[in-house]
Amino acid sequence: MNMQTLKVDLGDRSYPIVVGAGVLRAENLQPYLAGTQIAIITNTLVAPICLSQLEAALAGSNARIDVFELPDGEAEKTLANYIQILDFLVEKRHNRSTTVIALGGGVVGDMAGFAAATYQRGVNFIQIPTTLLAQVDSSVGGKTAVNHRFGKNLIGAFYQPKAVVADINLLQTLPARELRAGLAEVLKYGVIRDEHFFSWIETNAAALLALESEAVTHAVVRSCELKAQVVAADERESGVRAILNYGHTFGHAIEALTDYRSFLHGEAVAMGMVMAADLSLRQGLLPAAAARRVRSAVAALKLPETPPMLDTEAMLMAMGLDKKVIDGRLRLVLCRSIGDAFVTDDVDTALLRETLCAGESLCVG
Amino acid sequence: MNMQTLKVDLGDRSYPIVVGAGVLRAENLQPYLAGTQIAIITNTLVAPICLSQLEAALAGSNARIDVFELPDGEAEKTLANYIQILDFLVEKRHNRSTTVIALGGGVVGDMAGFAAATYQRGVNFIQIPTTLLAQVDSSVGGKTAVNHRFGKNLIGAFYQPKAVVADINLLQTLPARELRAGLAEVLKYGVIRDEHFFSWIETNAAALLALESEAVTHAVVRSCELKAQVVAADERESGVRAILNYGHTFGHAIEALTDYRSFLHGEAVAMGMVMAADLSLRQGLLPAAAARRVRSAVAALKLPETPPMLDTEAMLMAMGLDKKVIDGRLRLVLCRSIGDAFVTDDVDTALLRETLCAGESLCVG
Repeated sequence: MNMQTLKVDLGDRSYPIVVGAGVLRAENLQPYLAGTQIAIITNTLVAPICLSQLEAALAGSNARIDVFELPDGEAEKTLANYIQILDFLVEKRHNRSTTVIALGGGVVGDMAGFAAATYQRGVNFIQIPTTLLAQVDSSVGGKTAVNHRFGKNLIGAFYQPKAVVADINLLQTLPARELRAGLAEVLKYGVIRDEHFFSWIETNAAALLALESEAVTHAVVRSCELKAQVVAADERESGVRAILNYGHTFGHAIEALTDYRSFLHGEAVAMGMVMAADLSLRQGLLPAAAARRVRSAVAALKLPETPPMLDTEAMLMAMGLDKKVIDGRLRLVLCRSIGDAFVTDDVDTALLRETLCAGESLCVG
Repeated sequence: MNMQTLKVDLGDRSYPIVVGAGVLRAENLQPYLAGTQIAIITNTLVAPICLSQLEAALAGSNARIDVFELPDGEAEKTLANYIQILDFLVEKRHNRSTTVIALGGGVVGDMAGFAAATYQRGVNFIQIPTTLLAQVDSSVGGKTAVNHRFGKNLIGAFYQPKAVVADINLLQTLPARELRAGLAEVLKYGVIRDEHFFSWIETNAAALLALESEAVTHAVVRSCELKAQVVAADERESGVRAILNYGHTFGHAIEALTDYRSFLHGEAVAMGMVMAADLSLRQGLLPAAAARRVRSAVAALKLPETPPMLDTEAMLMAMGLDKKVIDGRLRLVLCRSIGDAFVTDDVDTALLRETLCAGESLCVG
């Protein structure tokens, strides 16, 4: 079996990420269970496909298992559903040594993580991401959150899991569109930190889209490594870590203006990455060839390159409530070359407006 | 001016507690403000008395100040009010570099702290406790929480403030009953860790009740020091820190069974301390003379010594949902002598039932 273990080094909160085909097994979970209670948080889409496999892996633990199924979708990442999870934990009398396991994509992971972070001021938490996006994006960083009606992820906590088990086999049943959305985040790690990895993705786009096990395992491991490097330097996101938001300020605004219904998060980020490359180009930071290469790689992964026409002022407003605004000044992640992104508050608003209404001419230079 | 500063040592999350008469001044706040926004969370009882003084101390900061007033009382420590605070922060467009200031007692501190811990995954937080209980109990430990309808403090986070400013002068307007409730926690630190401090309290009970500035400053500083010693050894409450809950498992159950309306938290803890001493005596751990001394000190501070008659089974149930239950087994804090408390799951249920219905004969031995 192709299995790799990556250690995220955070002192006494260090934890392993186990990646590979078939790694959802007892020996990868057992060491991280604490008490005699387990609360599995999943959703109605994932449960029929993955729950029995997880329950089989937990069968030897003798712990009592309670399962809470959320409805599926980003629109469910609400304070109301978060409170439902808390009520479930209280009503099932889970105590401080319970283990919360998130079985699902990013929404399930973010909500279960936030519930684990705040139930009795923090209980054990294990993540079993079932989407590629969650495997590469949620495995490292300890971000948990729910959305507020005025913005994404406005409520949440930093909270580290005890372990992450990323089983590539769980991706077999993932819709192709979800797989591509995950590849957007994979590509992001290349853009921000590793030109060599970016090139590898360009070369292996077809293998990744075909879900070839070896390619996907490498993509997940390398993405997690790159993210772990950044996070280890800046666990609470005060500085360099913000480069992980490359494409996200644009992406979040697109999602907000389309009520989180038209695009998957990864799709919005894909367009956001093209827009950030475009603005980097307009501000004279990034060569036109590199900007075009970002857009081409997005296209090669069969992701949307350009956003629908959205109201520019509404976009600016949506970007303005974003967490990355410091003291009323817009901060963005731009790049100087592929593999070298940086955070700046030196954003030219006139050029930003050009990017926001560039449409099909993004990154054309 | 009588001013003492105590440093709570938690590595990169260390912070000062400034204690004394008149310490609510600009120079004790200014260094801990981050951005250009301040959100003061207070309540309708405290605001008319203390808010203008805080605003005066912040006047030189040039920050925009928004004020949110909660209704007063433990019954308001709800998820619903927590969400109101979050909505307020979002609607006033507070960003990640805002500073949340809690101006009030434990309820305000716990709620403002939980909001600060979870708004945008954590923003700057300053505590200005206006009750003696909050000055000695909430200043150290980083506990934030709201109540769930099935139990106290079931939802929350560990989150450290940037600074605590404990102005003894703010206690001048505190009702005498609230002052006594705070003295219950002061006494607790003597019982669990410091026989010498316990004796000092016995000697100075009258000065404390008369709110003599020097005595109160010493009581606050010594309580915070003792708590800080315990917390530094065990920040996330996995072991020894649990001794801080001396009297609290009983106290929480009394509060729950009286709908949080009959007793102040400190009053419930006072009775809980007597009950814990009584059970320690019954289990042959604590000499009768020491148990009687605990009860006498509670009486000297004019706190209730014995609980009203409450249903024993309901008390057991209320104690059973408490966070201190591990895997279905009741853990309690008992003591071997004054100054030496410890956590045990070796609780004799028959003797516990005797304690629960002992009434006026508690600690009589």
